[in-house]
Amino acid sequence: MSNNLGIPTRAENYSEWYNELVQKADLADYSAVRGCMVIKPHGYALWENMQRALDDMFKATGHVNAYFPLFIPKSFFEKEAEHVEGFAKECAVVTHHRLKANPDGPGLIPDPDAKLEEPLIVRPTSETIIWNTYAKWIQSYRDLPILINQWANVVRWEMRTRLFLRTAEFLWQEGHTAHATYDEAETESLTILECYRKFAEDWMGVPVLVGLKSEGEKFAGADHTYCIEALTQDRRAIQAGTSHHLGQGFAKAFDCKFQSAEGKLEYVYATSWGVSTRLIGALVMAHSDDKGLILPPKLAPLHVVIVPMGRDEETRARTFGVADDLASQLQAHGLKVKVDKRDKESPGAKYNYWEMRGIPVRIEVGPRDLDANVAVIARRDTGDKETVALDSVVARAVELQGIIQSDIYQKALAFREANTVRVDTWDEFTAAFDGDGGGGFVVAHWDGTTETEDAISAATKATIRCIPLVPLAPSDAEPGVCVFTGKPSAQRVVFAKAY
Amino acid sequence: MSNNLGIPTRAENYSEWYNELVQKADLADYSAVRGCMVIKPHGYALWENMQRALDDMFKATGHVNAYFPLFIPKSFFEKEAEHVEGFAKECAVVTHHRLKANPDGPGLIPDPDAKLEEPLIVRPTSETIIWNTYAKWIQSYRDLPILINQWANVVRWEMRTRLFLRTAEFLWQEGHTAHATYDEAETESLTILECYRKFAEDWMGVPVLVGLKSEGEKFAGADHTYCIEALTQDRRAIQAGTSHHLGQGFAKAFDCKFQSAEGKLEYVYATSWGVSTRLIGALVMAHSDDKGLILPPKLAPLHVVIVPMGRDEETRARTFGVADDLASQLQAHGLKVKVDKRDKESPGAKYNYWEMRGIPVRIEVGPRDLDANVAVIARRDTGDKETVALDSVVARAVELQGIIQSDIYQKALAFREANTVRVDTWDEFTAAFDGDGGGGFVVAHWDGTTETEDAISAATKATIRCIPLVPLAPSDAEPGVCVFTGKPSAQRVVFAKAY
Repeated sequence: MSNNLGIPTRAENYSEWYNELVQKADLADYSAVRGCMVIKPHGYALWENMQRALDDMFKATGHVNAYFPLFIPKSFFEKEAEHVEGFAKECAVVTHHRLKANPDGPGLIPDPDAKLEEPLIVRPTSETIIWNTYAKWIQSYRDLPILINQWANVVRWEMRTRLFLRTAEFLWQEGHTAHATYDEAETESLTILECYRKFAEDWMGVPVLVGLKSEGEKFAGADHTYCIEALTQDRRAIQAGTSHHLGQGFAKAFDCKFQSAEGKLEYVYATSWGVSTRLIGALVMAHSDDKGLILPPKLAPLHVVIVPMGRDEETRARTFGVADDLASQLQAHGLKVKVDKRDKESPGAKYNYWEMRGIPVRIEVGPRDLDANVAVIARRDTGDKETVALDSVVARAVELQGIIQSDIYQKALAFREANTVRVDTWDEFTAAFDGDGGGGFVVAHWDGTTETEDAISAATKATIRCIPLVPLAPSDAEPGVCVFTGKPSAQRVVFAKAY
Repeated sequence: MSNNLGIPTRAENYSEWYNELVQKADLADYSAVRGCMVIKPHGYALWENMQRALDDMFKATGHVNAYFPLFIPKSFFEKEAEHVEGFAKECAVVTHHRLKANPDGPGLIPDPDAKLEEPLIVRPTSETIIWNTYAKWIQSYRDLPILINQWANVVRWEMRTRLFLRTAEFLWQEGHTAHATYDEAETESLTILECYRKFAEDWMGVPVLVGLKSEGEKFAGADHTYCIEALTQDRRAIQAGTSHHLGQGFAKAFDCKFQSAEGKLEYVYATSWGVSTRLIGALVMAHSDDKGLILPPKLAPLHVVIVPMGRDEETRARTFGVADDLASQLQAHGLKVKVDKRDKESPGAKYNYWEMRGIPVRIEVGPRDLDANVAVIARRDTGDKETVALDSVVARAVELQGIIQSDIYQKALAFREANTVRVDTWDEFTAAFDGDGGGGFVVAHWDGTTETEDAISAATKATIRCIPLVPLAPSDAEPGVCVFTGKPSAQRVVFAKAY
C-alpha cells in the first residue's frame, strides 16, 4: 500500500483500489456464501437514499409497488424461447423442501422424500412469474395499463463476482408494465429511460449516454432495449440501467390477451426495466479518489462531519459546545450531521476515517480557531480547505452541498468528454483499445450486423455500448463505412470495454 | 354469498370471509408457486406505510439497516443445536446452480455437473449467517453494540398456508444486535418490544398483550422470547411480533468473542426481533367487517375518496370541479385523496368498491347537495353518514382521521376486554375453548412446566400465548393452583387458540 489508508492508489492498481475501497468505506463485505455480499450499514444507507429518489420518480410517473414470489417454476422459463437462453442457465435451483438428519453420518441432508415435483428457480428476473399473474388480472382494455414496480433481491449464478458490480445475489427494482398498444409501451420505455438518466445525472452526479442496445446486447426476450451507460475512471463503460420494450412476446408465452374497446381479443404489450445495487459500483467508480469514497450530497447518508478538538476537558467543553450548536443549525437546514467526539482518535485519524467514507463536508473546530472566531471547512471532493467566520459556517456548509453536487458532475462530464474519441479506421480502433484498462468511449461506424459486432468484440474485447438516441455530435448521425468491414453504416455507435 | 360483495359474512364463515376479503380488497393474491403470495399494490402500499413507521422507530432508537445474503450454508444450521431443530427442517434447499437441456426429452433439468458441494438454505431467519459475519466484525468492546436491522424476504416451507398469516415466503424485518453484557441485551429486547407495542396500538389500532413466551413457545435458540399478542374477531390469538434475548448461544456457535475494557475475552450477547407481513393479517382480522377492509388512517394508503355525481356533462363539470377543489385542500393537509371519476360505475358500486378497500372517509358530492351548499361524509368504520356544510367538509374529513384512528382502537380494546376471562377449574377452562373459533384470552393458573403446557394444548388446542409482563389485573400476579394439575402456580398466564 502506498499510503496508510489501507487501499492502493488508482494508478497502482485500479481494480484492487475499488475492491479495497468498497470494504474500507464500509459499503460492503464478502460473505461466507460464494458470490453473495453483505451490504454494510453505510452502503445500505446510500442504497436507501437511491431507492427513495427513484421510488419518488416512479410514483410521480404513475407507478405503484407490489411484490411477486421469489421462486419461479422451472416450466415458466421454458415458455419464452429467447428468455430461457438468457436467464435459465446459471441460476439457483431449489430441488428439496426439507432437511433431515443424515442416517449415514453427522449433520443434515436434503430429505429424498421431500424432493419437489418441479424444481423452483430463485428469480434471476421476474418477467415469467409476473406475466403468469398478469394473465389472470387482465381481461379488458379497462384493466390496462398496469404500471407496477417491485423492489426485490434476485440471483444470477455468476462465476466471477465483484462487490456491487457483479454478485450472485443483488438488490434491484424491476418494473413490469402492461399496455394496450405498442406505442404506449414505447412511451413507457422512454419515460423510464428518462427517469434513469435524470437519476444518474442529477442525483448520482454521473453523466450517462442514453441509447439503444444492439440486437446482440439486448435483453433476452425483448423487442428492443434502451440503456444508460456511464464511464469509469479506468475508462470502461458500465451499464447503469436498462429499459426494455418487450413487445408481445411474454403475453404470447403466457397467453395474456385483452378485449379491446372495439371488442377484439389482442395480446398485451409489455415493458420491463431495472436498476440495481450495481449503481453503487458505478458511483464509486465515477467519483472516488485515492483517499476513498466521494459521495454526491443528494445521496450521501451524512452531509457534514464536525470534528471538535482539544486536549483538555475545558477546551473540549468549549469546542464540543460549538460543534453541537453548528450541528443543530445544520440539521435545521435538513442536513444529516455527525459530531465526531471519539476521544481515542487523533483529528488526523478522524479526517481519514470520514474521507474514506465520502462525507461531502468536514468542519474542524479547534480552540485557536474559536479564539479567532472562525472554523475550517474542508471539501471532500477537492480537498480544499477554507477558513470561515463562525457565523458564516452554516451557510457555507449548506451552500457547498449544492456546489459539490454540481462540481463532481461537471468533473465526470469533462472526464468523459476527454475520453470520448471518434475513429474511422480499424488501426485507430484497435489502437484505442490497446493497453491496460479501457479505452474510453470510441465512436465509430458499424455495418449494423451482429456478426461484425461479435468479430469486433472477439478482436478487441470492446462491445457496442449503445446506439445513442441523440447523436453525441451532429456528424455522428451521418452515414459512413464500418471500421471493421468497410460496409455502409447509417450512423456512428459507441464502443467500449465494459464492466 | 349472502351479499353482492363477493365475500361471505363473518358469521357465515369467518375463515372464508378472511380469505376472500384479502383478495377482493386487493391486498394479495395466490401465485403459481405453492404457498407463495403476490402482494398486490394496495396491500403493498399498506406494507410500505408499516415499514416507514417501524423503520423510523428503529432509527430513532439508534438502529441502522443493512443487508445479508439470502442463502445460508447448510453447515451453519448445524452449529446451533436448538436452532437447527426449529428452523432447518421445512425449508427451501438449493442443490444446483445451473439448468441444462434435458438430454432425454424436452425442457430443462438441474445440471448434474453443477451440483453444489454444500447445499444452501434459503434463509428462514438470519441469525446464523449474521453471527458468522459479526464474528469477523467484532474484536473489541469498542465494536459494540451493533444495532442492525434488515428488511428482507424469508422462506419457511409451511404445509398449510393462508395469505399473510402463514405463507412459504413472507416479507419481514429482522433486527440482530450484539452487546457486551446480558443487561444491555435485555434492555434492547425490551426497547424493541415497546416499539412493537406502540406500533400495534398507536398505528395499527390493535391492542396487544405484552409478555414473555413460555419455554415451550420461545424461539429456537433463545434464552427467552418476548412477544405481542393480538385478538382476532373470531376470538383467536395472533402473535404479532417477537423480541428474543439470545444470550450467548449464537456467539458461542460462531465463536464471536470480544476483548472487554478490562482486557478479558468474552462471548458477545445477542438479540433478534421481527415483525412480518403477518401484521397485515392481524390488521384485517382486528378491524374489518362484512363490507370489507377497515384501515387505520395512520397506515391507510388513501385517506379520503371523493365520489362526485351527475348524469349530464354540465352537472358533472360542476361536481367534478368541487371534488377536485376539495381534494387539493385535503392534500394540503397531508392526506392522500382520490377522486373517483369513473364514468361506467354507479355511485353505489363506487361506495362498495372503496368500502371493500377500507378507505377511512368518503365524501359524496351530488348536485342537490351542492344546491344546498353541503356534501355528505361517510365513515368507513361505523358507516355513519353526516351532511356537512361545504366550507366545513375539509376540516371534518381531517378531524375524522384522528377520530377513526382512536375509535377503532377503542372498539378492538373493548372487544378484547369482553373476550378475556379468568377461570379456575379445568371444567371452566375446557368450556371456554369448547365450540367453533377461539375462546378469547383465558387467564388461568399454570404450574410452569412444559409437560403441563403440552398436555393442556393436546386436550384443548389452546396454548400459552404469554406470561404478561404487567398483570392484566392485579390479582393475576397472586399465586394459585394450576387448572390442569392442581400444583402451585406463581401467577396467571394467558391461554388462547392461536393462528
